[in-house]
Amino acid sequence: MTAPSPSDLLSRIRIVMVATSHPGNIGSAARAMKTMGLSDWILVAPKEADAVRHPQAIALSSGAQDVLDRARIVASLPEALAEVQLAIAFTARRRELSHGRYALREAAGRALQAAGQAFQAAGRALQTTESCPDSTQAAVALVFGNEAMGLSNEEVDLCQMIATVPTSPDYASLNVSQAIQLAAYEVMMAANAFVLPDEPLRPASSVGEVGGFLQHLQQAAVESGFLDPNSPKRFMTRMQRLFTRARLEPEEVAILRGLLSSFQKKSG
Amino acid sequence: MTAPSPSDLLSRIRIVMVATSHPGNIGSAARAMKTMGLSDWILVAPKEADAVRHPQAIALSSGAQDVLDRARIVASLPEALAEVQLAIAFTARRRELSHGRYALREAAGRALQAAGQAFQAAGRALQTTESCPDSTQAAVALVFGNEAMGLSNEEVDLCQMIATVPTSPDYASLNVSQAIQLAAYEVMMAANAFVLPDEPLRPASSVGEVGGFLQHLQQAAVESGFLDPNSPKRFMTRMQRLFTRARLEPEEVAILRGLLSSFQKKSG
Repeated sequence: MTAPSPSDLLSRIRIVMVATSHPGNIGSAARAMKTMGLSDWILVAPKEADAVRHPQAIALSSGAQDVLDRARIVASLPEALAEVQLAIAFTARRRELSHGRYALREAAGRALQAAGQAFQAAGRALQTTESCPDSTQAAVALVFGNEAMGLSNEEVDLCQMIATVPTSPDYASLNVSQAIQLAAYEVMMAANAFVLPDEPLRPASSVGEVGGFLQHLQQAAVESGFLDPNSPKRFMTRMQRLFTRARLEPEEVAILRGLLSSFQKKSG
Repeated sequence: MTAPSPSDLLSRIRIVMVATSHPGNIGSAARAMKTMGLSDWILVAPKEADAVRHPQAIALSSGAQDVLDRARIVASLPEALAEVQLAIAFTARRRELSHGRYALREAAGRALQAAGQAFQAAGRALQTTESCPDSTQAAVALVFGNEAMGLSNEEVDLCQMIATVPTSPDYASLNVSQAIQLAAYEVMMAANAFVLPDEPLRPASSVGEVGGFLQHLQQAAVESGFLDPNSPKRFMTRMQRLFTRARLEPEEVAILRGLLSSFQKKSG
């Protein structure tokens, strides 16, 4: 198989900005992305609906107006992550979570592994089917929260991994576009150094596929009487964390759903 | 001699901004520096003489007002570099110069070598003379030019080394405060100023607890008719891999077993 070029890999990495308040930060982020060869990004519910056409966003995007124009705007984080296989939440806060937490440089290396994996999988699909896989589909999302609040626990729970930008112990308050600049830089450095591993990597399910399984699990758990349909949240949060952390393979999702269907048939 | 701490080293590194046009970039730079443990900086002939008191500079400095207040303003680059031993010019342009040119990460390593060297020299001076050397005197300057023009050849000539921030081949136009953020980050990484905080470890289930759960899962899967009791192996191998990889917490094992019991009761 041909080795992916740095731009092949970078085309599979998406920046996601959640609930961004200041259009200027959106413009700065577009410029930061373009300097490092990234162009796929999604804005989740920016505070100003028309943020990408705000004069400050346009001014600060400088020569990256094309990236600014390419922003997709969606209402919720699950939409931004639906087809993504690895979502990395950027947060400085300590959290009582079971996620793997990595410093930026290592997180960037893992993002590139996942991008390389998606490249391999697309190559295999190309060899075995008539249909042409979407070669530019994002496989990895780097997720950044609101300027003042960061990401909520619910948003972090949708991601498989947490990344922290190393900072001074005395002052860790990075501007969001500066954090995106650092992340984009480390990702590009990792893409330039990337070597395709010899072994084929494990295939990974998308966030959307795992979400479908979790809905199925909830339904089956309710039907069986295990779960009170009026208060599913605590159980489902635990299950979400567990199966997100496990990074399910597509075949595992299929097996587990088959098992659930079997339980449902028996009990129904 | 005691080894220098990361902050000993970072205190010897100065940021120099030459002829900066936008006060907002000065505010952003102050914040970027503080996040990476830098505080020594000099503004050479900023376009607005009172740039550090400009509302945009103050707004964008965020919690780094103290760094903003500490800016020294001088009229020319030689004044800013007077006591510095290594000045590194940041420029993306190709120049016909005899300077050593390094990518940012290697330049940061060299900056730290020079800072360490200065620390040693100050220690020796302390042992041999009565006078107390200024322990916080900058030894290294990282020099950034004007937003539109960059650094002039004359200004580059005052520096011993050229550093380039790696960028996409298609678009290299970094905002000056973003370039400072990246440089400060690499310098801090090189100074090893950051240690990822110790986090409480996740409680982990024993192999036996996971094994008990897997037996329970097998039994429930057989009872439901999903799994052929005479050939459970393929399914169970997959489940073992999945739940081993997930590194289940004891509470998760208990929840999953409760769910299985509930399925069994319904179907049995």
